[in-house]
Amino acid sequence: MSGRLAVVGLGPGDARWLTPEADAALAAADALYGYGPYLDRVAVRPGQARHASDNREESARAAAALRHAAEGASIAIVSGGDPGVFAMAAAVCEAIEAGPATWRALDVTIVPGVTAMLAVAARVGAPLGHDFCALSLSDNLKPWELVERRLDAAASAGFVIALYNPISRARPWQLGAAFERLRRQLPPTTPVVLGRAAGRSDEQIAVTTLADADPGSADMATLIIVGSAATRTIARPGRPPLVYTPRAVEGVPS
Amino acid sequence: MSGRLAVVGLGPGDARWLTPEADAALAAADALYGYGPYLDRVAVRPGQARHASDNREESARAAAALRHAAEGASIAIVSGGDPGVFAMAAAVCEAIEAGPATWRALDVTIVPGVTAMLAVAARVGAPLGHDFCALSLSDNLKPWELVERRLDAAASAGFVIALYNPISRARPWQLGAAFERLRRQLPPTTPVVLGRAAGRSDEQIAVTTLADADPGSADMATLIIVGSAATRTIARPGRPPLVYTPRAVEGVPS
Repeated sequence: MSGRLAVVGLGPGDARWLTPEADAALAAADALYGYGPYLDRVAVRPGQARHASDNREESARAAAALRHAAEGASIAIVSGGDPGVFAMAAAVCEAIEAGPATWRALDVTIVPGVTAMLAVAARVGAPLGHDFCALSLSDNLKPWELVERRLDAAASAGFVIALYNPISRARPWQLGAAFERLRRQLPPTTPVVLGRAAGRSDEQIAVTTLADADPGSADMATLIIVGSAATRTIARPGRPPLVYTPRAVEGVPS
Repeated sequence: MSGRLAVVGLGPGDARWLTPEADAALAAADALYGYGPYLDRVAVRPGQARHASDNREESARAAAALRHAAEGASIAIVSGGDPGVFAMAAAVCEAIEAGPATWRALDVTIVPGVTAMLAVAARVGAPLGHDFCALSLSDNLKPWELVERRLDAAASAGFVIALYNPISRARPWQLGAAFERLRRQLPPTTPVVLGRAAGRSDEQIAVTTLADADPGSADMATLIIVGSAATRTIARPGRPPLVYTPRAVEGVPS
């Protein structure tokens, strides 16, 4: 069995965040699979096949790529950011578990990347400098009640919260409901960072507070970081503010 | 004020995880600051100064680098992994907030990187494929009772848990206590991944269960991922098992 499958993280939009390992894995593939806009970021070389699919078709894409690899080809599936964070690596594992035994014999490699929360955090300072969690707001794959329970647990225990998949046309109210939920636990002055399209030419980074956070200013390409009660903002003359969460909990010397 | 400070993430040990942006930021610096073993991974060019310090001296290192930048130099501070995750970016922000006004006028850039939990997750599959949190087990900067509260909150709400700074000579019992605490909430079969020195020549990745997880097999260079009750292991003939957390919560169609 010579088939190979690499699940490759492209990082957020900026090509300067694509690792050399990811670059090499893309170049080595006979065929590339992925969501169209991610594939558009990859320079396809002559002779390399390109299979674009919609972003709601992760399971079908994983199965198609595994079938192709099982024929002996070297395949790369691309993900934006890191493939292990709300992305293709889990979809591939699910397909392998449910699929034929031949798929378990394949050489499968996951190539990590810079995930969106790290890129957005870097743009503003160090909001993830203390304990934090990453939570998908999509209730396509879990009940909304569970999202609320996790928001409550994370906020009350003092985790900074990175929200992936905050809003879409099919899920218009969830982000507003999440902000409402978090306002029950966190001070109105808690810093909130809305990072849209980090690393792309249309990047927009906004720093606001939980009291003022407007779900209408987020879209599918936005990653949101909600601070903990310890997260701070440093005003800077002529520069955007820095947002960070101190390493030490108040009262403990650093 | 022409001084510049870049806080640069090197990624975990493998140079193939160093992003082009990080590479460029390192090359552009007049002087490099960092923990010695991280600096050893950087090719110092002629004329570039190198200031190594101990890993317990983050605050002093941040202040020294800021002072140097305020003299008009272009400085890079290096971090392993991502500088925003339990690393130098927060230490720099703390120093800026506490320091002289001139430090707030500096051009400060954070260069993100692949953080250890993403690299370790990639080695085994997709354990972070669903909601997860990152928690430092060090009680140097927060009380142990708070660590326990966060472990309880994260495990009971169904987050996968990545543990940073699990153990050191000065903190020998904390990881064992954390496993004990998690055993109260999670099934004994919960997958646990111990990823040591990911990307380095002495890399060791082990997959076990919460019942069998042995704190003695971890050290300072180990990143640990404790699954949720939903995390699964796929046995593969002739290959290491895959560990992943399904995207969908049981009962919700994917």
